[in-house]
Amino acid sequence: MSDQISRTDVNTLGEFGLIEHLTRNFELRNPSSLKGINDDAAVIDNGNFLTVVSTDLLIEGIHFDLMYTPLKHLGYKAIVVNLSDIYAMNARPKQITVSIAISNRFSVEALDELYAGIRAACERYGVDLVGGDTSSSNKGLLISVTAIGQGEADKLTYRNTARVGDLVCITGNLGAAYLGLQILEREKQLFLSDPKIQPNLEDQSYLIGRQLKPEARKEMIEMFAQQQLVPTAMMDISDGLSSDLMHICRQSGVGAYIEESGVPIHPEAQQMAIKFGLDPITVALSGGEDYELLFTIDPNDVEKVKYLPDIYIAGEIVPAEDGLKLHTKGGNIHAMTAQGWTHFG
Amino acid sequence: MSDQISRTDVNTLGEFGLIEHLTRNFELRNPSSLKGINDDAAVIDNGNFLTVVSTDLLIEGIHFDLMYTPLKHLGYKAIVVNLSDIYAMNARPKQITVSIAISNRFSVEALDELYAGIRAACERYGVDLVGGDTSSSNKGLLISVTAIGQGEADKLTYRNTARVGDLVCITGNLGAAYLGLQILEREKQLFLSDPKIQPNLEDQSYLIGRQLKPEARKEMIEMFAQQQLVPTAMMDISDGLSSDLMHICRQSGVGAYIEESGVPIHPEAQQMAIKFGLDPITVALSGGEDYELLFTIDPNDVEKVKYLPDIYIAGEIVPAEDGLKLHTKGGNIHAMTAQGWTHFG
Repeated sequence: MSDQISRTDVNTLGEFGLIEHLTRNFELRNPSSLKGINDDAAVIDNGNFLTVVSTDLLIEGIHFDLMYTPLKHLGYKAIVVNLSDIYAMNARPKQITVSIAISNRFSVEALDELYAGIRAACERYGVDLVGGDTSSSNKGLLISVTAIGQGEADKLTYRNTARVGDLVCITGNLGAAYLGLQILEREKQLFLSDPKIQPNLEDQSYLIGRQLKPEARKEMIEMFAQQQLVPTAMMDISDGLSSDLMHICRQSGVGAYIEESGVPIHPEAQQMAIKFGLDPITVALSGGEDYELLFTIDPNDVEKVKYLPDIYIAGEIVPAEDGLKLHTKGGNIHAMTAQGWTHFG
Repeated sequence: MSDQISRTDVNTLGEFGLIEHLTRNFELRNPSSLKGINDDAAVIDNGNFLTVVSTDLLIEGIHFDLMYTPLKHLGYKAIVVNLSDIYAMNARPKQITVSIAISNRFSVEALDELYAGIRAACERYGVDLVGGDTSSSNKGLLISVTAIGQGEADKLTYRNTARVGDLVCITGNLGAAYLGLQILEREKQLFLSDPKIQPNLEDQSYLIGRQLKPEARKEMIEMFAQQQLVPTAMMDISDGLSSDLMHICRQSGVGAYIEESGVPIHPEAQQMAIKFGLDPITVALSGGEDYELLFTIDPNDVEKVKYLPDIYIAGEIVPAEDGLKLHTKGGNIHAMTAQGWTHFG
């Protein structure tokens, strides 16, 4: 566990040397990537397609904790969460830009790890790194990512276009990423109180993996295209189902209900929630960072999704005055809030 | 100077409330801005144009000092420096995204000032704010800007396409922004040593303005189009003429010489450099942040630029083996370095 790791000071490469070093293994894959790193700006040939751009700023101590986040995973996740935003438009990501700022405690080897994760995400999702820069920071690591994608005008999916009667769908199980974070936080506190304690995370690898190495729903967008399905509205679940469904409802001027039995929860998440003394459905509604897609479809399209893997019909869009409700397995009705749900009086 | 300023805690608005509040006065101007704030990503219809994207991460204490940078100017400059990168491609900026991270010492009113500057830049340059977010930081203010522009495939200008025999041109005077920074730094030190000293900056308003409120060369790109001139290579001068010309030379596989007499220096910069005990040409070669355009043209195009305002022919592209040289007014030849020039042995 404690192999000697060589340490090259970032300053030895110089600013441009560092960029060249960090990006030396990237290659441009898309014919539309006309110009990548090494110019003032990236150039993207869109022909008759639309350009979709998403950007994110990640800050150490706010968005991630390097005590339990391997840098390679961090690089991977920083890209994936941006690509997820592009997929959530029913578009395909093609290029990314990445800017980082680092304090002098980071070595070139550490940044290599970060960029190895970025590269792994580029390869997995077929996107090109086309720009960005590095600078110093007073404290910690900052990562700013912009993702650029292509979509077709009649297929892009927004948040403000859900209609009463549409079905509410989810692409996978919820709450696992939040529970993974709770496990990592618990182990961190144990370690801080007694560094001799060895964490045993192996039997929680699914939950921790959902937190540290999430994936974006690339294949779902491909399946939609194959099925000629265009959701009426869509976004990715980054803040939690309740909070994100609230965005769709507010922007579309509608309400919705969710059936508790329609919200998929992984068995390990179910067990772990109970271990933590939490209600599994509350965790599924309010835990964020699962990066599943939340979308609505016209009821006439139900046959197109019924037999697709990993798509769960969880509820229905209703008039705005009916609000946002959870129908529990026990037959009760609760008002959903951004934090999960409250008892409905 | 000490008017009572009302202070609203950022937390009172909530994350989404804050974004809505900060962006409430922005409007979308370009027909290509199909979708702005309030969705996962911005959508840009490019038709048969190319998309050009530039991104920048600005960090308090590294890239700016709030002790002498008014937040409105900071917002303006953060946008302008990104737009300058788009113009440097001979393209037209159309959209920007802005993400900020703030520590709790910033009030809503302070951020309003920042966004007022951003809005002023959007209006001046005709660009639309189409995305971004806000988050908290452990320390200070961070600003991440991405600019997206349109260009035509046969008119975009890169850094690696300068050819031997091309003329080297500059769009305006150099060194003033650097001297403005020196004045501000000097006044800051005086203030820190004795807060009763009142700074008198009025007779240095030109130099300070070049530092605090730079402009990008929008009108130059329009003039190029009118004259049907396409530079053979172009970039903006952000690091300093020597350093930036070195990029063009290295990437194009060429050398260059610059005539000292061809490098425009503002009379106030000339005087202030001498006051600081600096050589004016050294300041013009190595002082950054002037955001003028540095470009090369085919010698057959010389008539097209000769009578344009604010264009100075400063030198010529030569074979790589001739290196990068400064021809002084006194008839001497010096090797140029990224820091200015060194005596040529």
